[in-house]
Amino acid sequence: MAENDSSNQESQATKSPRRQAQVLKGMRDFLPEGMIARQRVVALLRDVFERHGFEPIDTPALEYYEALAGKYGEDEKLIYHFEDHGGREIGLRYDLTVPLARFVAVHRNELTFPFKRYHIGPVWRADRPQKGRYREFWQCDADIVGTRSMLADADVVSIVIESLQSVNMPNFVVHINHRKLLESFAIYAGVPADRAGSVYRAIDKLGKIGESGVVAELEASGVETTAAGRIVELVSTSGPPDVVMSAVAERLSGIELAREALDDLQQLFNFLAELGAPAEHYEFDLALARGLEYYTGPVFETMVDEPKIGSLGGAGRYDGLIGMFSGQDIPATGMSLGLERIIDVAEELHLLNFNTSVAEVLVTVYDAEHTHESLALAARLRRAGIRTEVYVEEGRNLGRQHQYAERRGMPFSIVLGPEEAARGDAVIRDIGTREQVSVSLDGVPGWLMERLGKRP
Amino acid sequence: MAENDSSNQESQATKSPRRQAQVLKGMRDFLPEGMIARQRVVALLRDVFERHGFEPIDTPALEYYEALAGKYGEDEKLIYHFEDHGGREIGLRYDLTVPLARFVAVHRNELTFPFKRYHIGPVWRADRPQKGRYREFWQCDADIVGTRSMLADADVVSIVIESLQSVNMPNFVVHINHRKLLESFAIYAGVPADRAGSVYRAIDKLGKIGESGVVAELEASGVETTAAGRIVELVSTSGPPDVVMSAVAERLSGIELAREALDDLQQLFNFLAELGAPAEHYEFDLALARGLEYYTGPVFETMVDEPKIGSLGGAGRYDGLIGMFSGQDIPATGMSLGLERIIDVAEELHLLNFNTSVAEVLVTVYDAEHTHESLALAARLRRAGIRTEVYVEEGRNLGRQHQYAERRGMPFSIVLGPEEAARGDAVIRDIGTREQVSVSLDGVPGWLMERLGKRP
Repeated sequence: MAENDSSNQESQATKSPRRQAQVLKGMRDFLPEGMIARQRVVALLRDVFERHGFEPIDTPALEYYEALAGKYGEDEKLIYHFEDHGGREIGLRYDLTVPLARFVAVHRNELTFPFKRYHIGPVWRADRPQKGRYREFWQCDADIVGTRSMLADADVVSIVIESLQSVNMPNFVVHINHRKLLESFAIYAGVPADRAGSVYRAIDKLGKIGESGVVAELEASGVETTAAGRIVELVSTSGPPDVVMSAVAERLSGIELAREALDDLQQLFNFLAELGAPAEHYEFDLALARGLEYYTGPVFETMVDEPKIGSLGGAGRYDGLIGMFSGQDIPATGMSLGLERIIDVAEELHLLNFNTSVAEVLVTVYDAEHTHESLALAARLRRAGIRTEVYVEEGRNLGRQHQYAERRGMPFSIVLGPEEAARGDAVIRDIGTREQVSVSLDGVPGWLMERLGKRP
Repeated sequence: MAENDSSNQESQATKSPRRQAQVLKGMRDFLPEGMIARQRVVALLRDVFERHGFEPIDTPALEYYEALAGKYGEDEKLIYHFEDHGGREIGLRYDLTVPLARFVAVHRNELTFPFKRYHIGPVWRADRPQKGRYREFWQCDADIVGTRSMLADADVVSIVIESLQSVNMPNFVVHINHRKLLESFAIYAGVPADRAGSVYRAIDKLGKIGESGVVAELEASGVETTAAGRIVELVSTSGPPDVVMSAVAERLSGIELAREALDDLQQLFNFLAELGAPAEHYEFDLALARGLEYYTGPVFETMVDEPKIGSLGGAGRYDGLIGMFSGQDIPATGMSLGLERIIDVAEELHLLNFNTSVAEVLVTVYDAEHTHESLALAARLRRAGIRTEVYVEEGRNLGRQHQYAERRGMPFSIVLGPEEAARGDAVIRDIGTREQVSVSLDGVPGWLMERLGKRP
């Protein structure tokens, strides 16, 4: 592969026999604490997707490179690809959307349409690593294939909202716009279609460079001053969806594409209201113009401005992509959330109480003579559904074993020694308070179940 | 990479513009039905691992090739590897054990030992695909790092047993042997250590080629006829662990390695009994001699003979591998189950009732005028925890919508039309029996919860 980043030098510099025990730059190990948090967030998102009837699929990490090539514009150079043992050019998937298109082409006769699928898994990009940007990261996608109905787009937007609610995300807003409206702005400004991209890029910067900045940028791409001013005035319109809708309808009344876009959005906003989506969590944002490579209808992006977090993901309708593989016209809409982004924010803002341990109790081992009692109790606790660890070293003193339970974040430990055996009970220690109580052996499972808030 | 398989020809033959819409040979897409089954089995195994206090970790799919090289003997040629954009030689992980060793080397100061981790995820091997053997497949590993205690080995064997019980696997037996016993057989037979491998390979074939076959094979590798006969007689000994133990102890009484092995196994069998592991699910098998590259102590392999399924996974103690990266001596033991193997068997033998759908109810859409009622009811059902899909196409007749619910395997569908709206109720249809009942709108969530066996 081409050596097109400067990290080649870095890799030469660190070459050493020890290098084999390193994690590749931009990739990460997950220690138990981090992995428990990831599994928790994945479970919450899955639950939302499934509550909406989306079904899981999976595709291989590796695809024919031909399937990935020509889909990502400039970013194609970030695809990891190589020749396999059989001389095939293959690549690691770059996202979950192109594999979905390939999947639908292969399995279209086995699927029931409209096809609602979710897919949660890793993707790989040889991008320059930086804070929050990794070379291996997970996407959480939910898409509906095979319908042009705005019911599908509303379903997808409501899933974004409920997903972020499920992780207690504060103050997020799904910004909603429409590809055809952006095209209408270009028409309105008298910019020919082949140069419309520069209009989108200028509009997208509104939040960053302000109205005068956008006007300047539009002028630089050949838009007349008056037209530039009118576009900026229009895209700056804010307020409840219906207010923005009327403003746009009036200004763009002669443009057919605009009428189509507003019809779609009118339906979408109605459906969202009927689904009970809270109005504070979505808005009509005429300046949203990101990631337009393959979107054809409504587009979404989820932003958190306070605290300054930025985008958590988005998506939109893409009626052209799926058909690229199938040779058929297949409409589709969907959303994608970045798992690491959500987890980073959830950890930073303490949105969730992440456990640091899966084990709920440590059964200590007193000595070789009493090991069998510890093992028998552990087996009994596990059968009751309590996550139970036996300390797996013999001959360590109890202090060290309690310390192990503490370091691992377990709430309780249990001592079963000769005195306890003689009394037919066990001593349960609360690792946090260091309080100890004697409980009859038969009573231990029930005592723990109650304290752990488990249903029998 | 070297073109060392004949599939190169096959790939040339299929080169076509359509090839991009193909799944790579030996790799698989998972449709919803298959993926629901996979997620179910993964959840069952995770539950067993966590009930034993094992904690999840993850490592990148990609590692420095140096970290993977030199660990797998002959099979090293099956590693997918290539040069990345920065000129680093990198490879896709081949199993989860070598990444664990690399992980422990990197994070040893952040971990609490004994370290009990589980890891469930895909690995890649450029192997020749055949029934049940794939180029991308999932391993489910649980290992304990940092203790020589047989308590750890007993923990690991009991997890194998409980995992297979959790998927209702019938008639499985964990075969248990010890690396040092196999070495003792070679000593007993007078075979020098550097040729001991041929003794192991011969012994391992006992089930396939019978006693006389093994004798012939031993003779072919230079073992004297008398010694060959004695080895075969010994490894054919069967019966309860203690009976086999005494037989071996007597024959190999002069060999120190054998004494060490028997001490370990005596403890292991005692601990298994104390943990309540059912005796029919494990046995002492002197002829088990597979996968000995890095095992140093007890070794395990799980077999199902009736029906003829073969190995479901195994493992053992490997006190040398973890230290290869750390430059420290770190003992470890663990087990690995192949997810696809378990799922194939579970599906073939109907061990689990796999759902074919995640959605529990389809809310149909009568017409544009009544869509809002369908959306409002769907939102309400989801809030009650019912997995609810709204049919996402407008203008389809109800028959077609019920058919969609049936194809997707949903148990119920709901009709909300003008008549129902006038009465303030909904018609719930049992997709299986085609029976329909009218239920007041407020009563729908409760009615469904009860039928679906959900707790409020």
